[in-house]
Amino acid sequence: MQKGNMMIKFDENEAVKSVQGALALRPQIENIVDQELARGIKNISWIGIGGTWASAKQVHVHMKERSALDTFVTNAAEYLTTGDRRIGKGTLAILSSVSGTTSEMIAAVDKLHEAGARVFAFIDTPGTTLTQMADDLILYEKNEQLKFFMTADYLMYKAGEFPDYEEYYRQLDQNLAQDLADVEKDADSLAQEFARKAKDNKLTYFVGAGNLYGAAYSYAMCYWEEMHWMRTKSIHAAEFFHGMLEIIDEDTPVVVLQGEDSQRPLTERVIRFLDKINKNHTVIDSRDYPMPGIDEKYRGSIAHLIVHGVTNRIDVHLEHEMDHDMNIRRYYRKVEY
Amino acid sequence: MQKGNMMIKFDENEAVKSVQGALALRPQIENIVDQELARGIKNISWIGIGGTWASAKQVHVHMKERSALDTFVTNAAEYLTTGDRRIGKGTLAILSSVSGTTSEMIAAVDKLHEAGARVFAFIDTPGTTLTQMADDLILYEKNEQLKFFMTADYLMYKAGEFPDYEEYYRQLDQNLAQDLADVEKDADSLAQEFARKAKDNKLTYFVGAGNLYGAAYSYAMCYWEEMHWMRTKSIHAAEFFHGMLEIIDEDTPVVVLQGEDSQRPLTERVIRFLDKINKNHTVIDSRDYPMPGIDEKYRGSIAHLIVHGVTNRIDVHLEHEMDHDMNIRRYYRKVEY
Repeated sequence: MQKGNMMIKFDENEAVKSVQGALALRPQIENIVDQELARGIKNISWIGIGGTWASAKQVHVHMKERSALDTFVTNAAEYLTTGDRRIGKGTLAILSSVSGTTSEMIAAVDKLHEAGARVFAFIDTPGTTLTQMADDLILYEKNEQLKFFMTADYLMYKAGEFPDYEEYYRQLDQNLAQDLADVEKDADSLAQEFARKAKDNKLTYFVGAGNLYGAAYSYAMCYWEEMHWMRTKSIHAAEFFHGMLEIIDEDTPVVVLQGEDSQRPLTERVIRFLDKINKNHTVIDSRDYPMPGIDEKYRGSIAHLIVHGVTNRIDVHLEHEMDHDMNIRRYYRKVEY
Repeated sequence: MQKGNMMIKFDENEAVKSVQGALALRPQIENIVDQELARGIKNISWIGIGGTWASAKQVHVHMKERSALDTFVTNAAEYLTTGDRRIGKGTLAILSSVSGTTSEMIAAVDKLHEAGARVFAFIDTPGTTLTQMADDLILYEKNEQLKFFMTADYLMYKAGEFPDYEEYYRQLDQNLAQDLADVEKDADSLAQEFARKAKDNKLTYFVGAGNLYGAAYSYAMCYWEEMHWMRTKSIHAAEFFHGMLEIIDEDTPVVVLQGEDSQRPLTERVIRFLDKINKNHTVIDSRDYPMPGIDEKYRGSIAHLIVHGVTNRIDVHLEHEMDHDMNIRRYYRKVEY
């Protein structure tokens, strides 16, 4: 597994191939969206739970900046209990599932269908339950956010809200995969240094805003808590000043995931505060990574992918430093509840 | 201050008077809503930040269970940076502010007005900036959730979605204030016991669902973090199983705020899990408090007020046990950022 400057668990060819393959799904996505548009889309529900709910929040804020389409985020378990009267005939529900077997998602798809909604699913694992339930299916591993953003971008393009669509994706098709692999290489030694220091943290705070808020939420919960068994709290940068600031001491570990969309000023404000009060914060700023093949004006829309490249490397080093396999679960799918 | 069975910091007459006074705002609320309906309401934005954003989430889920009205929650700082194309002429923005001077809210009201929205504000403090900016104003202290729910209920009543409105409020007008005061008295010794044990917690988890999710979020952040300087993490019960469960040990302090609305099964599931794994969880269940003057079928809509009565008593005892005045801030409105 040792390739690319002897980085552990990094196969540059695999990394590039994975992103390039996701980008190559675009004609399939466009075809599905075209067919759904022909049927008529009244509104769009990005539905998920846990990490996929967080990805839904990321794509939702991406659209909110640009679009007047009626789109919202749905938590599958809340939908199952409380329902949502907006969801019905004409609703396109878009979801992603790695396993294809998440219980809340299976039940939610049934309820979506009963309500008259159509379901467009990105699934990583062939032959699983959700693959058989979706009205529209794309089977491909990883790159959840990229798949969601590609779908959102085409929906906005078709609504006349994204005139740059073709130019933007020309740049992504040509350069994104290699540029992201380069992020991982650039970030590796910093990530290793951070992991060595962070492995002894009793509690680590993660702060994000814009399309990095969902990233902060899922990175804290689905990676640190679920995979590393490390305690975390994540908070939206907008909310940081309405309570959480008071428990910040000089040595409190805080990680700020900073992007380049409209909400960047919110994380900048948190960083200004931390610079005064705290000596143990780490800023993972997409702006620190060049992405030479992507225009400046498009960076806000891919900042979460840049930061994901950095956190990827942190995970590898944290797993190594703590000698704790990220694939082991204590309770999930092991204990009945 | 020692009244009502010698409970510290509890004045039963004051407590009853405060809730009764809030309920007496109903004709004013109805009058304002009637005028706004006459102007035309296209959609309703519950806008806030921090604790008031959490209250907005509480009333939003209350409406979602019952209503087809177009209503959503807006975070003021996100609105200021990212905007929201749904907000414009015909939008009724409803907010609450204790201080009347929260900077994000002042800026948000300006932006709401520029967009053509109308602003209906509940403010605690007379003569403050926000009182001068609101199109519709109700000045009254405390009872934020009750004020919001009364407004939501009348909006739903006028939409034909709440036929029980008059009977429900007849019961609340007659019995809610005293029944809630009795909750505080009933809960006092348990709250004291809990506070004595919890004061040494390094990190306390709060879990909620339905109209108790916003309660868990704001209780953890605006009370424990901001006022008690205690570390917390809050999580929606739906999300608990998608990461957070893995860091639960036998001795991890967890508090579940359990209500009686459609999402009660979600906290029940968390409690089933905790009963197997953990020996340090506390369930604050609205169902443990009788509320003799309120019909069973209405309890789901006031469960958050019952639980608030319990957490009120916890706060009083935590303040006392830790000898830390809840009114002191380290940074908020003291440090520039």
